[in-house]
Amino acid sequence: MAEVRNRKVVLKRYVTGYPTEDDMEVVDGTVHLAVPQGLPASAVLVKNLYLSCDAWMRGRMSKRDETITVVNDFVLGEALMNFGVSKVVDSTHPDYHAGDLVWGMTGWEEYTLVTQPASLVKINHTDLPLSYYTGVLGMSGLTAFAGLFDVCKPKKGETFFVSAASGAVGQIVGQLAKLAGCHVVGSVGSDEKADLLKSKLGFDDAINYKKEPDLGAALRRCFPEGIDVYFDNVGGETLDAALLCMRPRGRVAVCGMVSQYNLEDAAAGVRMCNLPWLVAKRVRMEGFNVADYLADAAYYRRFEEEMAGYLRDGRVAYVEDVVEGLHGAPAALVGIFQGRNVGRQLIVVARE
Amino acid sequence: MAEVRNRKVVLKRYVTGYPTEDDMEVVDGTVHLAVPQGLPASAVLVKNLYLSCDAWMRGRMSKRDETITVVNDFVLGEALMNFGVSKVVDSTHPDYHAGDLVWGMTGWEEYTLVTQPASLVKINHTDLPLSYYTGVLGMSGLTAFAGLFDVCKPKKGETFFVSAASGAVGQIVGQLAKLAGCHVVGSVGSDEKADLLKSKLGFDDAINYKKEPDLGAALRRCFPEGIDVYFDNVGGETLDAALLCMRPRGRVAVCGMVSQYNLEDAAAGVRMCNLPWLVAKRVRMEGFNVADYLADAAYYRRFEEEMAGYLRDGRVAYVEDVVEGLHGAPAALVGIFQGRNVGRQLIVVARE
Repeated sequence: MAEVRNRKVVLKRYVTGYPTEDDMEVVDGTVHLAVPQGLPASAVLVKNLYLSCDAWMRGRMSKRDETITVVNDFVLGEALMNFGVSKVVDSTHPDYHAGDLVWGMTGWEEYTLVTQPASLVKINHTDLPLSYYTGVLGMSGLTAFAGLFDVCKPKKGETFFVSAASGAVGQIVGQLAKLAGCHVVGSVGSDEKADLLKSKLGFDDAINYKKEPDLGAALRRCFPEGIDVYFDNVGGETLDAALLCMRPRGRVAVCGMVSQYNLEDAAAGVRMCNLPWLVAKRVRMEGFNVADYLADAAYYRRFEEEMAGYLRDGRVAYVEDVVEGLHGAPAALVGIFQGRNVGRQLIVVARE
Repeated sequence: MAEVRNRKVVLKRYVTGYPTEDDMEVVDGTVHLAVPQGLPASAVLVKNLYLSCDAWMRGRMSKRDETITVVNDFVLGEALMNFGVSKVVDSTHPDYHAGDLVWGMTGWEEYTLVTQPASLVKINHTDLPLSYYTGVLGMSGLTAFAGLFDVCKPKKGETFFVSAASGAVGQIVGQLAKLAGCHVVGSVGSDEKADLLKSKLGFDDAINYKKEPDLGAALRRCFPEGIDVYFDNVGGETLDAALLCMRPRGRVAVCGMVSQYNLEDAAAGVRMCNLPWLVAKRVRMEGFNVADYLADAAYYRRFEEEMAGYLRDGRVAYVEDVVEGLHGAPAALVGIFQGRNVGRQLIVVARE
């Protein structure tokens, strides 16, 4: 049984405020290239190829009050986890065999023993870049698709606003909203990203929020008739400004609130002025979690076929920000919160 | 053509912060007891019997930025307006005749010329107290009914929380939720009101929020398994505390945010800590406006029949706080914001 190096990115200490590279550590262990004997259930040993790097990992990097948390904290000294694309090395599960390409929850390391193989998804479209299954054909794409069609339910001719618009989810949901016939505007944190939205991703307009002294005024300029649908990735001030600009019966799909993840003192909260407008404007604001949609295998396959079609015929473009090697992973994760990434941040562990 | 006194409660000046009695004035005018000739459309002259006194009138007492307001401000020197029960004195509209009993938007005065008679609703159940049409059989009842069944959609066995629970809407929605099979807890601002919820209105439990140093702890005590449905009449801290206590797939119907109506500086906003929980808990939060349901005559009649049945057979109890005469109206309205009223605040202008 071969034993090889297993490099991993582990959490060194629990984080308060913004994470730093020092909160993580890249360490080398070893792994036997076979599923261990004597496990209580079947398992799959995978070699990780591409890893997603997402803001929502931040929530698991803090030690949180167990009574209110819904996901487990990361374990100190163990590899961080997130979705990734992997190749099966060994399997005691009848559905998986060595050489299969899969995506699913895995570790930030070279090899991971997946003890819940039912959560793995087989990769169907190998003519497209495999890395796409860390994003547009994986969780980010499914998040955009489900959030748009099942939560926002946009109609042709409606106005659509998305924040963090060049990110993993934002770039896709904006393009899907365009395909649905909406007028689409995104907010981003640099002129480079704003240009990207308009030149490559087909958005009708873009706001660089860092250059807008009054975000509400910027929204009124871009949406003189108001916003029908706001796809919220950031929460906080942007959400508050959007609420004031919503049209009657507008919908807010709350996908994430990245502006809130690093608050030193979450109990201090964020000032919201415009929540009472929910009533006058009859706005619906709804949180959703892509896990609910991923649990429906038929739903995912329907999405996967549709999205693969859009990617092949060029109706959806896709921008990735690629870091080579696990050594670069801590900086990449820290960079997410500074908005350093342009497009879907991912880490290449190995190319096959 | 008889000319009689028309006493009215007028707005003397636009309000900032909490309204005071000095912001209003009771003045005597006169009125001819007939619809004037030469009007562009048919109209109805009514004698007002009972007037609703509601927190949401506060919004019309300020001079607001026209670009963001959805209802008109009250006009200085003219009678305040709200829903009331009236008797038709004269009519040029074919559907209304002298002596008809109606309810609808009218003035805080003895006689009102209703120039949009299509908005009036004829009163069907005169065996019940006429004043009920300022509340449980009128807008408050319809608000509770539509908010519960069309927005909250409670299921048998779910947990239900309502704020301002002894008020015009709260007392009714709590009882309807009980009839729907929910475990119902209300928050109020005095022990007297808390007792009322439990002894007369059949709530399972009550919170006097003024005696709770930690509202979140009080909610966890009353809802150890969390809240499925929150019917929000107050917004602010109570909403924030409830968000943390919501169960997965919980629903928040936002009916009003009375805690926000008197903010000296609305732009300062309110601190919200728990909005990110919308995502993790997949909570839907939805504002609604009873006007949308009132516009559907068949919907209102269905509600009216059902509620009249509940009132007759005692399945719904109803508490009114009655002020005699327009002279008492300014104090009654001011008192709403101090929580002085116990039950539906209404003003008797005349008993027939």
